[in-house]
Amino acid sequence: MVENDVRHLINRKLEHVEVTVFGDVSRKTYTMLEDVTLVHQAFPGISLEEVNTKAKFLGFDVNAPIMVTGMTGGTPELGKFNGTIASVVEELGLVMGVGSERIVIENPSSEESFRIVRRNAPTSPLVANVGMPQISRGYGLRELEKIVSVIEANALAVHLNVAQEVFQPEGETDYQEEVLGKLKDLSSQMGIPIILKETGCGLSMETVRKFSSYGFHNFDVSGQGGTSWIAVEKIRGERRGNWKSKSASLFSSWGIPTAASVIETKWADPASFVVGSGGVRNGLDIAKAIALGADIGGFALPVLEASLEGRDAVKQFLSEVEFQVKVAMLMSGSRDVSSLKKAPIVILGSLKDWMESRGITFSTYDKVRKGGY
Amino acid sequence: MVENDVRHLINRKLEHVEVTVFGDVSRKTYTMLEDVTLVHQAFPGISLEEVNTKAKFLGFDVNAPIMVTGMTGGTPELGKFNGTIASVVEELGLVMGVGSERIVIENPSSEESFRIVRRNAPTSPLVANVGMPQISRGYGLRELEKIVSVIEANALAVHLNVAQEVFQPEGETDYQEEVLGKLKDLSSQMGIPIILKETGCGLSMETVRKFSSYGFHNFDVSGQGGTSWIAVEKIRGERRGNWKSKSASLFSSWGIPTAASVIETKWADPASFVVGSGGVRNGLDIAKAIALGADIGGFALPVLEASLEGRDAVKQFLSEVEFQVKVAMLMSGSRDVSSLKKAPIVILGSLKDWMESRGITFSTYDKVRKGGY
Amino acid sequence: MVENDVRHLINRKLEHVEVTVFGDVSRKTYTMLEDVTLVHQAFPGISLEEVNTKAKFLGFDVNAPIMVTGMTGGTPELGKFNGTIASVVEELGLVMGVGSERIVIENPSSEESFRIVRRNAPTSPLVANVGMPQISRGYGLRELEKIVSVIEANALAVHLNVAQEVFQPEGETDYQEEVLGKLKDLSSQMGIPIILKETGCGLSMETVRKFSSYGFHNFDVSGQGGTSWIAVEKIRGERRGNWKSKSASLFSSWGIPTAASVIETKWADPASFVVGSGGVRNGLDIAKAIALGADIGGFALPVLEASLEGRDAVKQFLSEVEFQVKVAMLMSGSRDVSSLKKAPIVILGSLKDWMESRGITFSTYDKVRKGGY
Amino acid sequence: MVENDVRHLINRKLEHVEVTVFGDVSRKTYTMLEDVTLVHQAFPGISLEEVNTKAKFLGFDVNAPIMVTGMTGGTPELGKFNGTIASVVEELGLVMGVGSERIVIENPSSEESFRIVRRNAPTSPLVANVGMPQISRGYGLRELEKIVSVIEANALAVHLNVAQEVFQPEGETDYQEEVLGKLKDLSSQMGIPIILKETGCGLSMETVRKFSSYGFHNFDVSGQGGTSWIAVEKIRGERRGNWKSKSASLFSSWGIPTAASVIETKWADPASFVVGSGGVRNGLDIAKAIALGADIGGFALPVLEASLEGRDAVKQFLSEVEFQVKVAMLMSGSRDVSSLKKAPIVILGSLKDWMESRGITFSTYDKVRKGGY
Ligand SMILES: Cc1cc2nc3c(=O)[nH]c(=O)nc-3n(C[C@H](O)[C@H](O)[C@H](O)COP(=O)(O)O)c2cc1C
Ligand SMILES: Cc1cc2nc3c(=O)[nH]c(=O)nc-3n(C[C@H](O)[C@H](O)[C@H](O)COP(=O)(O)O)c2cc1C
Ligand SMILES: Cc1cc2nc3c(=O)[nH]c(=O)nc-3n(C[C@H](O)[C@H](O)[C@H](O)COP(=O)(O)O)c2cc1C
Ligand SMILES: Cc1cc2nc3c(=O)[nH]c(=O)nc-3n(C[C@H](O)[C@H](O)[C@H](O)COP(=O)(O)O)c2cc1C
Repeated sequence: MVENDVRHLINRKLEHVEVTVFGDVSRKTYTMLEDVTLVHQAFPGISLEEVNTKAKFLGFDVNAPIMVTGMTGGTPELGKFNGTIASVVEELGLVMGVGSERIVIENPSSEESFRIVRRNAPTSPLVANVGMPQISRGYGLRELEKIVSVIEANALAVHLNVAQEVFQPEGETDYQEEVLGKLKDLSSQMGIPIILKETGCGLSMETVRKFSSYGFHNFDVSGQGGTSWIAVEKIRGERRGNWKSKSASLFSSWGIPTAASVIETKWADPASFVVGSGGVRNGLDIAKAIALGADIGGFALPVLEASLEGRDAVKQFLSEVEFQVKVAMLMSGSRDVSSLKKAPIVILGSLKDWMESRGITFSTYDKVRKGGY
Repeated sequence: MVENDVRHLINRKLEHVEVTVFGDVSRKTYTMLEDVTLVHQAFPGISLEEVNTKAKFLGFDVNAPIMVTGMTGGTPELGKFNGTIASVVEELGLVMGVGSERIVIENPSSEESFRIVRRNAPTSPLVANVGMPQISRGYGLRELEKIVSVIEANALAVHLNVAQEVFQPEGETDYQEEVLGKLKDLSSQMGIPIILKETGCGLSMETVRKFSSYGFHNFDVSGQGGTSWIAVEKIRGERRGNWKSKSASLFSSWGIPTAASVIETKWADPASFVVGSGGVRNGLDIAKAIALGADIGGFALPVLEASLEGRDAVKQFLSEVEFQVKVAMLMSGSRDVSSLKKAPIVILGSLKDWMESRGITFSTYDKVRKGGY
Repeated sequence: MVENDVRHLINRKLEHVEVTVFGDVSRKTYTMLEDVTLVHQAFPGISLEEVNTKAKFLGFDVNAPIMVTGMTGGTPELGKFNGTIASVVEELGLVMGVGSERIVIENPSSEESFRIVRRNAPTSPLVANVGMPQISRGYGLRELEKIVSVIEANALAVHLNVAQEVFQPEGETDYQEEVLGKLKDLSSQMGIPIILKETGCGLSMETVRKFSSYGFHNFDVSGQGGTSWIAVEKIRGERRGNWKSKSASLFSSWGIPTAASVIETKWADPASFVVGSGGVRNGLDIAKAIALGADIGGFALPVLEASLEGRDAVKQFLSEVEFQVKVAMLMSGSRDVSSLKKAPIVILGSLKDWMESRGITFSTYDKVRKGGY
Repeated sequence: MVENDVRHLINRKLEHVEVTVFGDVSRKTYTMLEDVTLVHQAFPGISLEEVNTKAKFLGFDVNAPIMVTGMTGGTPELGKFNGTIASVVEELGLVMGVGSERIVIENPSSEESFRIVRRNAPTSPLVANVGMPQISRGYGLRELEKIVSVIEANALAVHLNVAQEVFQPEGETDYQEEVLGKLKDLSSQMGIPIILKETGCGLSMETVRKFSSYGFHNFDVSGQGGTSWIAVEKIRGERRGNWKSKSASLFSSWGIPTAASVIETKWADPASFVVGSGGVRNGLDIAKAIALGADIGGFALPVLEASLEGRDAVKQFLSEVEFQVKVAMLMSGSRDVSSLKKAPIVILGSLKDWMESRGITFSTYDKVRKGGY
């Protein structure tokens, strides 16, 4: 990759951070978590202190079912955000992912902005990150091992972002089925699990079924309702006078709302491990996502925003989220995360209609989410 | 309890009154009584004069199915409100509860602010009040008998307020199951019935089933849609810079709407005695709550507000409510309260979806509410 | 009746006209005709000229299924409105009712204000009017024959207005079941059919079943969504400082929306003759009401309003309505009124939920409204 | 036809263009395409380049399933718009229809404004246009052959516009069933297929069944939600003081929303060829219409508007639409148009209720739209 391309990649990443943080790219649509109610239990049978938020992340113990999903890295400035977030994640005992590490392959000097994550979070589960198009376009074991080793990752997220690529002038929309076989082969040679991860448009039951048939069973749904990459590309396109920008605007509410996506994913692969993310904004959203079938909830943008204000802001934000998860657990009568998965819920409005349209009856799904499949 | 704690308790009570009355703590959410229609009967078969609003409150005769639920007491000022309300309740032949009497145990000089209730309402059914956490933390027969005797109570309400406690700096969230066994034992030694009472978040079918299994069958649902204690604690928290205040705001619409809670309660324990309360604001709301399955309707905040204006305002308010109940009965073709329980109703919107999500079919519930279980 | 009472009755009538016309007493609620769609038929199979709007009104031929329901009479001024409306009804070949004729019994000098109707509409079907409370309180064959003879009526409407009476200081809410037997006896001695008529709150299936059991099968539903008598009494009450006025405000959306009421009536008594009225405001509303099961549509307030502007306004209004009925018939592929009753319809939103709550399935009702019961 | 009539016809056409373009005649209602979601597929299994938008239009190959439906012609000015649109359609490989050619029969000098279309689009499928009332009123083989030959048409659209005619002072509402037999006879003598086409009110299942029974199987639904001809006539009527104008306003939301009409058409005649049009405004709308059962999507007004700005604007608009169709296909995992017809969809809100009211279950319709009937 010539130097210009690297600069280009870095600039794009910086612009992404800037646009997502300062542009108005989220909450144009909704997650359908709004349509979910955790049923209040006036007599929880436990005290707040007894609520146990400990969760499992792909075999690792974490203090609460909270993950910061992959966002950044590549330049010293971005590395600083990574470092800040990592040190809070370590202190609170949570999970963290990093942004796409393509830059590491193409520009070794960017490594430091990722290495800081493991340095600041020595015992936390960390998730490396690479795009599916990179696998399509040639990344092999060597590249993936590099990407993983930089943060001594415990898992590798392979992200899917067709909706974004399609509106980028420089977009790479290579999503041929062959790549899944290739990725499966690579994964069997690597020592860590693969997470297939969306980036704001959600996973459907059809997509999950395809993945499952190749032996992939870990998913980060990253549904619609939070950061919209289509909206980001719309803004970037406008700045450059890219004619696709108008179409990006048309598609800015495209995607599967997060709540629907968690349900579709669990419905298609009931034994899968699911990160419920995309527009998750607080501990109540996380609790709802888990009650719907997720194993852990994930945030991106809100944590990045806090990190701009500094370590204290990140810590305060994530501590409040943890408290909120705990409160939601207590008041829904959930002693631990596995009870929360079985907590009574009510589904109203569009999410109810969505399920109906997709042939998912509430009573059958109720068994699925509770593990009785 | 040291003197400081007593002062603290009193101050908290005064602040509660102030915040609920002057802060904007209700109607942030809705009771779902809005989704219920009593079907007009153009030819009632009776005249207005023939409509009989007499009801039973746990075996006592009352002139109308209207209860003022527990709110206050503890200081001379608060005692005055209690006295005003009590004298109107006596005149109109209704039911009244008092606020938490923990203060009586901890500060005997507060007794007078409760005793005035029985003095002003010598023949009315009166309900004593204590929090479940107090039972958890050690109250025994001696304390309960004291609490009851102060107002020569006809029933004792044990209130559940986990949602409030959780956001109080000083919150006590002890809701371990053991306490139910203890309370059952105590109750068998006391001569009066126990009412399990929420305080604004509603009772669920799961909670009611748990209570029933311990032999409790009298409930005050106090559902969501009226006074929100979470909102009250949010305001108190803001004043004190308590970090939980932000989370309280997030949970301010948490809870089971009153209409849904009446249905859940009756569904779980069809033979139970049910007070329909929480956001009930007029006689039409009461009539709807009864048609949904409640035995009597209850108010808190609106009566306190009227009592600040004086006895006339309380009397006018409660008289109008009684007239409205009567009108709703006439026009729904209900000769007496037991007919009102069978009056045709229509359930639209979210309440309909709520029932569906909870596996309650309208036609089966229609039999339950009419007593055919 | 002493003179004062007569004056009182006259004044009340004048005030009613004034308040309904100048106050904002309609459209506070909705008729649910908004939830009904007549399905467009791009190829009607006929031309506009071939559409036949002729209808039957209790055996009489009328040019279009349009009725002006009873409103006024009693003073010379009100008689003028009656006369104006009558002459247009005659010219267009429609049906007309008059307002309550109680005044005729109590003050013979008021007769002229009704007689003008028959004089101006010598060949039209005319409907006399009396309140159910009057029958309760003693009217017998003599009074009814008088009331009928004054306009040589072809039918007698007995109106039900419990919702209004209840909020009048002077209200008469006598609706004991005995009166139905009495009215049935009276009706068998009279030569003309009886219509049981609401006045803005609609008829329910329970009420219609009761009426049918006494042998009454002609109904004017006068549902909720148009002129609200409760709202009228609220305004009158405010003027007089009547404390019931506040309660009237609470009940101002009480009642069965017109569309629901037509369905309930037909469901309860499939062979009945039904006037679809209450908030009907144009020919499309009439066409919808008929497709839902009514035999004819009825207006009150809009015609009164037009009559204040004069004969031309009434004629223009009713001619446009007739044209609109014709257009709706053409475009729904309905050659005549009996085809319109079978025209395909779509029912969305609250009316759909209403039917469900009342146990009326669309497919079964579809047969009922088409006459296949 | 006397000269005055021809001038009249021309003026009317010019006014139509002016009112539709400058008046506010669309989007008063909605297409119900808003209630349809194409389910995002995060891993399409193909790249954007591999998406194949080629479609069939009545046996002809086109580059994308996009049609400009008939609008204009008759005067030199209008011919210019026709020419502009035609040359872009030719360049992009799409389909185009022309406006009503009645004027050609009545005024031969208008031919040129249509001939230009074939000249500028020598290889594109072109659709001639005539109104059903003209067939009723006497057009025979001679006239139709003339109309077809002027643009060497590949198909003839016979338009239905009863809703418009009814509100025109000069309206012709001849839609007697006989004309269908006549048209069938004529069609068997002509070498090209007939499309039965609405003009903004949509086709119902009843209408389509009638057409099918006569052997017609090609439809342009032109549903409600886009250009409203009733609204156009309302504006024209107001200008002329036509009393029907007020009624036109009442009916301006009359009609079958486009999404519902596509479903009704396909439900009634599963093997039919369907143009999904009426309020279609971009490539996402087209993709939805096709997923619902249409074979191709159609626009009118937006293309006319672009043509006023010139050739570049038309090309840009249609190119973007093509790109949007491609993006929607990629992200719904549709390799080609026949996969798009089977793409997973979600139907919420009113469209769901519409289907239910019409007895169309989602699961059965899902088979129909996928070709499994
Ligand atoms: C600034 C920014 C950069 C991102 N970069 C990546 C990335 O490199 N790889 C990836 O898998 N997801 C990336 N994401 C997507 C997030 O992980 C997440 O899926 C998405 O933002 C939705 O979550 P949110 O609504 O909480 O932000 C990024 C998100 C943000 C806001
Ligand atoms: C000022 C105030 C104090 C209250 N104190 C108590 C209390 O001590 N014990 C209790 O059981 N409920 C208490 N409540 C709760 C009420 O009894 C009732 O359940 C709740 O306010 C919902 O009813 P509403 O919407 O009509 O106010 C209090 C309510 C108010 C407004
Ligand atoms: C001014 C006025 C007076 C009325 N008086 C009577 C009456 O005396 N008897 C009666 O049966 N209905 C009476 N009605 C009720 C109407 O017949 C009708 O049922 C009701 O107004 C609803 O129809 P609308 O919404 O078209 O006004 C009156 C209505 C109005 C507006
Ligand atoms: C200016 C104008 C003129 C039209 N003239 C005709 C016509 O002559 N024949 C016809 O079949 N449809 C005609 N139409 C209807 C369109 O073909 C189309 O069915 C309708 O406008 C709905 O599509 P839209 O919402 O995309 O405009 C015309 C539409 C417009 C805007």
